[in-house]
Amino acid sequence: MSNLRFTITKKSENISQWYNDVVLRSELADYSPVKGSMVFRPYGFAIWEKIQAFLDGLIKARGVKNAYFPLFIPESYLKKEKEHVQGFSPQMAVVTIAGGEELKEKLVVRPTSETIMYAMYKDWTRSWRDLPILINQWNNVVRWEKRTYLFLRSSEFLWQEGHCAHATHEESLATVDWALGIYQKTYNELLSLYGIAGIKSETEKFAGAVQTFSYEILMPDGKALQACTSHDLGQNFARAFDWQVQGKDGGKFYPWQNSWGFSTRSIGGLILVCGDDKGLVLPPRVAPTQLVIVPVLKKGSEEKVLNFCQKIKDELTDFRLELDLREGETAGFKFNKWELRGVPLRIEVGEKETASSNLTLVRRDNGQKEMIKLAGSTRRIKEILAEIQKNIFLNHQKFTQDNTRSVSSLTEFKEIMRTKKGFISAFWCGDPLCETKIKEETKASTRCLPIRAPEEKGECVYCQKPAQKRWLFAQSY
Amino acid sequence: MSNLRFTITKKSENISQWYNDVVLRSELADYSPVKGSMVFRPYGFAIWEKIQAFLDGLIKARGVKNAYFPLFIPESYLKKEKEHVQGFSPQMAVVTIAGGEELKEKLVVRPTSETIMYAMYKDWTRSWRDLPILINQWNNVVRWEKRTYLFLRSSEFLWQEGHCAHATHEESLATVDWALGIYQKTYNELLSLYGIAGIKSETEKFAGAVQTFSYEILMPDGKALQACTSHDLGQNFARAFDWQVQGKDGGKFYPWQNSWGFSTRSIGGLILVCGDDKGLVLPPRVAPTQLVIVPVLKKGSEEKVLNFCQKIKDELTDFRLELDLREGETAGFKFNKWELRGVPLRIEVGEKETASSNLTLVRRDNGQKEMIKLAGSTRRIKEILAEIQKNIFLNHQKFTQDNTRSVSSLTEFKEIMRTKKGFISAFWCGDPLCETKIKEETKASTRCLPIRAPEEKGECVYCQKPAQKRWLFAQSY
Repeated sequence: MSNLRFTITKKSENISQWYNDVVLRSELADYSPVKGSMVFRPYGFAIWEKIQAFLDGLIKARGVKNAYFPLFIPESYLKKEKEHVQGFSPQMAVVTIAGGEELKEKLVVRPTSETIMYAMYKDWTRSWRDLPILINQWNNVVRWEKRTYLFLRSSEFLWQEGHCAHATHEESLATVDWALGIYQKTYNELLSLYGIAGIKSETEKFAGAVQTFSYEILMPDGKALQACTSHDLGQNFARAFDWQVQGKDGGKFYPWQNSWGFSTRSIGGLILVCGDDKGLVLPPRVAPTQLVIVPVLKKGSEEKVLNFCQKIKDELTDFRLELDLREGETAGFKFNKWELRGVPLRIEVGEKETASSNLTLVRRDNGQKEMIKLAGSTRRIKEILAEIQKNIFLNHQKFTQDNTRSVSSLTEFKEIMRTKKGFISAFWCGDPLCETKIKEETKASTRCLPIRAPEEKGECVYCQKPAQKRWLFAQSY
Repeated sequence: MSNLRFTITKKSENISQWYNDVVLRSELADYSPVKGSMVFRPYGFAIWEKIQAFLDGLIKARGVKNAYFPLFIPESYLKKEKEHVQGFSPQMAVVTIAGGEELKEKLVVRPTSETIMYAMYKDWTRSWRDLPILINQWNNVVRWEKRTYLFLRSSEFLWQEGHCAHATHEESLATVDWALGIYQKTYNELLSLYGIAGIKSETEKFAGAVQTFSYEILMPDGKALQACTSHDLGQNFARAFDWQVQGKDGGKFYPWQNSWGFSTRSIGGLILVCGDDKGLVLPPRVAPTQLVIVPVLKKGSEEKVLNFCQKIKDELTDFRLELDLREGETAGFKFNKWELRGVPLRIEVGEKETASSNLTLVRRDNGQKEMIKLAGSTRRIKEILAEIQKNIFLNHQKFTQDNTRSVSSLTEFKEIMRTKKGFISAFWCGDPLCETKIKEETKASTRCLPIRAPEEKGECVYCQKPAQKRWLFAQSY
């Protein structure tokens, strides 16, 4: 084994190549033999488990319960909502043979579960008393892709999809809003990522939704990642499934629905934003390993140093900690390896530290070193980890704010897209034709209308007709 | 809504019909529009979540890490191990169209993941230093079925599949043994079910394994459920994938592998064993709701009683508790509903209890009632729940022992299968021909050779040739 294994492309030189190097060499994930699919290796999956635990807690706190619906959806069910099937058809994987026989009705591997779930919801409800239905599921979905971009784009991905049904539109909208809120909390507090919450345009909304909300996160290359979505489905699916229940007044009504999803794509965003030339930089709250102890051994004192390392490990039980005892690798090699893997804090232990019962701490995010006594070190380490968590978020918030630019003309818009990219804030009249033209001429699409965007008087950046709000534009991932 | 909704077939009269009634009416699960598939409703899925949390903790404590491998397996990969593909072919669901195009190579929806995982293991390892690989995944798998038996047999089911690779056969066998041990622990301590651990015969073992171990659980109708399996794969798959790594001695060797799985089938076993004529009886440790408070309201005192109910709820925070405030249902109706749903302990609260700050507790498992003071009630409730947990296990252990019969002749064997069923302990010579004949003539197949079965001198119950061990036979689910 050689140091070459951990040599990666510089982030500043080629971010795509850097990204692939980091993901593969830090053993987060791998390509699979099936085109478009990927393997979540234990290190990458452990990040997903942290996200799941955090988000699942927030979901359950609302009274939403987990369930599990079938992987296969009969083709006829998907066709019930017209926009929905049109949106997903090009990406479907279809089972035509099962149990050795050609199937009479083809089965689609779920690209999302609205249609299979709502057919059941209809069976389970008679009146307003059976509402709300508050259900979530953690599962795999398939939307066919030929080229994999690890975590960010793969045919199969993992996510949670929440699907609630309410007696009123108001209640349903409250759920849509709440879901967007817990997603934002997850990004800000767990993943240390900043973003902008807003409403998608008609063109960019979910197939079958009345309105889609998303959280948009700016990547280091100036492109935006749609990081999660929450959809107001209105009564669209209820009508498509002819699902009516009895109201308090005795009449019948179509329930109001919403769906909301957060996927393993988030891990891609995390890697892209938080990494640097040395590899991954993980925020401590989501890091599978928060501390790594690397022994720096010299002949003659190995046993003493290793005993002290073990003592440290036994002491620091409040953290997710690894003691790297792998043979055949130098301490320097191990430093590189754990930097590549993004462990927030390294503890170096050599003769000096052992003799004085000290720890040398090295921060992954900014390289700062400090030496502290082992006795009472837990408190200081907690402080440092909290600082790292905050520091990563503030850096990304600053980066996003520095790269959000208001423009008042198409020329200015184009110039920024040509030179800097990032978020562009511009008046748009709402006409899909202008939206398409802007995209054709600049590569930037509408990302969202930020929530609480003030009403102003302006002119559409494309057609100069009157426009009331500034939309956020960017090139999309 | 009427009481009819909760009327179920008696368990003693028709156990299959009783089972379906219980599962559907207690809202554990439902049939899905796709033949052979099922929906895990929130109440049923919550049981699976409890099992997952328990088992996942045991798996992680061993250092096994979770990962996630693709849903689709190229047909050519499945074909690499001959016995394996032969075993699974008849049950495969196959994707032939994706992204609007006919696929060049068909993709099989995983029936189990050996082949897709081991192709990756090969890529990830060079030498003994990269072993052991200790990986588990929680996922969905598909084995085509035309008729659903909710939880017990469905085309898609949920499980965990652990797949480890070791440098020696000894180490691999230790993992096989450990896995069987944690499964047994889960059945005994969480699900309160008793069973017999043993080795499967050549005919009954996993397709591709050297040896399969299972835990066999006796159901009330005298049939046996293969409740989980742990397989010694030897070097079979390593050879099939030509996966060799460098040994300490510089030479190359094929890693030793094992796989082990525990599925949602376990919930079917739990329901069948623990239920009674009134419905489900859930062991407290796995019950999504451990306590239910049912207010018994009379005109004039509603507010007082409901306030006291709320006070109880606020006090008993150590338990998973529900306060049933649903309108339009009588207390008696609610008693039936929660009995059907198997909640271990019911708290009845009426005027009398409210006036004296008492709780009336009613055990689900044996109907015993007692009244206790609210103050300090947590301790007593914990005792009762522990008693219920133990009581269910002891009942099932006794049932299994009472229904395990040693026989010395085929006539006796047939007579028991005709009248009582249950486990039959009988000498068998090991010849698959005798095994087949026994099955044809009695419906009973070999379930396992119990671990630590003593070596004795006997004669095969079928051919009378010498036999050294007594095998366990039963009709299989």
